Amino acid sequence: MRMPGEAHALVRHSHQERVLRALRERGALSRGELAEAVGLSRTTISEITRDLLRHGSVVVLDTDAASRAGSGRPAERLVLDPDSGQFMGVDFGHRRVRVAVADASHEVVVSGRQAYPDSTGWPERISIAFDLIDRLSVERGVHFRALQGIGIGVTGPHPRSSAPLAPDGAFGTGFAAARDDVDVSFAERFGASVIVENNTRFAALAEALAGGADDENLLYVRLSDGVGGALVIGGQIVSGATGLAGELGHVTVAPGGARCRCGKSGCLKTVASVPSMLAACRERGADIGSIDELASSADPVVKQVLREAASAVGAVVGTVAMVFNPAEIVIGGEIARLTPALVERTSETLGEELFPWVAARPVVRAARLADDDGAIGALAALFRSAPMLADQPEPAPVRALPA
Amino acid sequence: MRMPGEAHALVRHSHQERVLRALRERGALSRGELAEAVGLSRTTISEITRDLLRHGSVVVLDTDAASRAGSGRPAERLVLDPDSGQFMGVDFGHRRVRVAVADASHEVVVSGRQAYPDSTGWPERISIAFDLIDRLSVERGVHFRALQGIGIGVTGPHPRSSAPLAPDGAFGTGFAAARDDVDVSFAERFGASVIVENNTRFAALAEALAGGADDENLLYVRLSDGVGGALVIGGQIVSGATGLAGELGHVTVAPGGARCRCGKSGCLKTVASVPSMLAACRERGADIGSIDELASSADPVVKQVLREAASAVGAVVGTVAMVFNPAEIVIGGEIARLTPALVERTSETLGEELFPWVAARPVVRAARLADDDGAIGALAALFRSAPMLADQPEPAPVRALPA
Repeated sequence: MRMPGEAHALVRHSHQERVLRALRERGALSRGELAEAVGLSRTTISEITRDLLRHGSVVVLDTDAASRAGSGRPAERLVLDPDSGQFMGVDFGHRRVRVAVADASHEVVVSGRQAYPDSTGWPERISIAFDLIDRLSVERGVHFRALQGIGIGVTGPHPRSSAPLAPDGAFGTGFAAARDDVDVSFAERFGASVIVENNTRFAALAEALAGGADDENLLYVRLSDGVGGALVIGGQIVSGATGLAGELGHVTVAPGGARCRCGKSGCLKTVASVPSMLAACRERGADIGSIDELASSADPVVKQVLREAASAVGAVVGTVAMVFNPAEIVIGGEIARLTPALVERTSETLGEELFPWVAARPVVRAARLADDDGAIGALAALFRSAPMLADQPEPAPVRALPA
Repeated sequence: MRMPGEAHALVRHSHQERVLRALRERGALSRGELAEAVGLSRTTISEITRDLLRHGSVVVLDTDAASRAGSGRPAERLVLDPDSGQFMGVDFGHRRVRVAVADASHEVVVSGRQAYPDSTGWPERISIAFDLIDRLSVERGVHFRALQGIGIGVTGPHPRSSAPLAPDGAFGTGFAAARDDVDVSFAERFGASVIVENNTRFAALAEALAGGADDENLLYVRLSDGVGGALVIGGQIVSGATGLAGELGHVTVAPGGARCRCGKSGCLKTVASVPSMLAACRERGADIGSIDELASSADPVVKQVLREAASAVGAVVGTVAMVFNPAEIVIGGEIARLTPALVERTSETLGEELFPWVAARPVVRAARLADDDGAIGALAALFRSAPMLADQPEPAPVRALPA
């Protein structure tokens, strides 16, 4: 089955693949980190990286001198040859598009954003994104000739099938149209493969990676125009059987409560989205018109509304954490960044739902990244989405089959 | 980096690996199924399998004539050489151990079970299992010389770390001891690698595979002495960041309700476990002493207790399904098998929690397999746990490193 003369070449090739894949997925790594990541000895890693450096597929980025604790010689950090590929992350939000382009070493070489009104249709959003990309290319003198993959975040769930999923309007502006047009438009324009995913899921992946290599089990909740959610398990986005995973905002928290756009009543969104919080303040007589007023007001009514929202979020997140056992729970959205008390209260309520011992307790924190960093998450998903073995072409048959 | 003369051998080797891995993971497959599973053409698959059949690593099991719909020549189903390996699944329940041994073709060649009292300590449970295995070996004339892996299911969560997780008794008899002793005892006795996991998770994996290749996103709930839960995503068991995933039984459903052994109050377990249901019947004046009476009684009090339990299960499962979007929800445990109305009521309540459109609806069903089929799930996990590339040994360095 395997000819003896080939055996060593096969093993060496497999080791090279693992080293290249680790650098592709994780960006800059020292030889020590590489040895740990791929499970080979330092000696073998040194030999493999020497070959790869000589060949030029890998280059030295810098040393870890700046971040290094303790004495000892600073370690070189290796990356894939930056010129060997480009990757584009795009995040279409409700009111702006963000674009970030990285090289194969994970360095973001170009990024920018462009606002549009919420009412903007999909063909126009795509055209705005193309104009932004063209402008960035000219301004920074960067060409996208080596583009290998494009990751595009969109609002609403992104289903795997092409069957109509939800009634029109349930997830906001033209979700179905986004699904049909975005991937084809970008693939044709740039001649690269495209992945499309919900942008909250991409943001969750970016948060998981920003938290370090051990944070790859993460539950993300975003309090914004709606209440979004996403799960990362083992460093992978969870999409669900029909692409609907992560709908924390539509868990029932107030049976018989306010009607939700999804068709149900008393969804978490009707209590904990920013518009719902603003409406609740006004209903109860507090004249609060903006997210800044909501965050800074000393009015006890406003504080009570925030408290109730946080308790509802904490209860839902607690149930989910009991079943997923995440390492981290991240609360995103501008209101969470502006109002530390909201994150604290969520954490308290959540704590009441979990087992009363330490190992069952995830870290609860506000998001580190801005809300439009779905583009960064899209890049991360791209770096992880292309297993190199699967890239190998199928060879032509070497002999005819017997009839 | 890759010598030209090696390229074709490398690609062919990679394709062989993928074919062997698909047969290892999934058991018997026709060439057509193989082509689909590994993403290669029928022509390439025919060529690869011809080489593998000639070499003896793959054999023809049978044809699909019996199960085939329509006309056309029956297709041969291929399996790995049965003699190339043995795998043992063991399931330690509260009151019995079950053992199943399969060959590399996935055929279960030996299986059996042995009861013990709930109070049996771990050293004795292990000794009972060894006696059972010896007896089966003698009775069936099978020797376990080629044992490559052992999967062991235990009650309670199985954490990844060795740190003490939960206070003693929170998960029943000697959980910590199980963790420490079982894997070492089996590894020493059989000289094979061992994986240990919660047996409800193994049962969930077995259900996912029993449902067909498309059912690899599954939520499993077992109503028994406690209320167990497990998630399978993309065909993989979800363990969680600290090994505590799946604790559906400890989601709060009755705030301020009955005290639970875990230290919380009003957990789902206090409403929907069989002992809790029996206690609720008696408290409300229905003289019900066994699970059979619980299932068959026409007493309206008993029916109401079952209904309340099912509603609580449905509400929790509905929240989890909203976040996880499973293809199937499976209700296990003897009471679910005996009482179809309980599964129906769970499904109804669950339906009220989900989006009111079809794509969001998972199939809800009673478990197909018996409750001690954690042993079958352990075998499935073994077949999936050994990526073949990782098995390749690291070669000795071929030249000295420069100083």
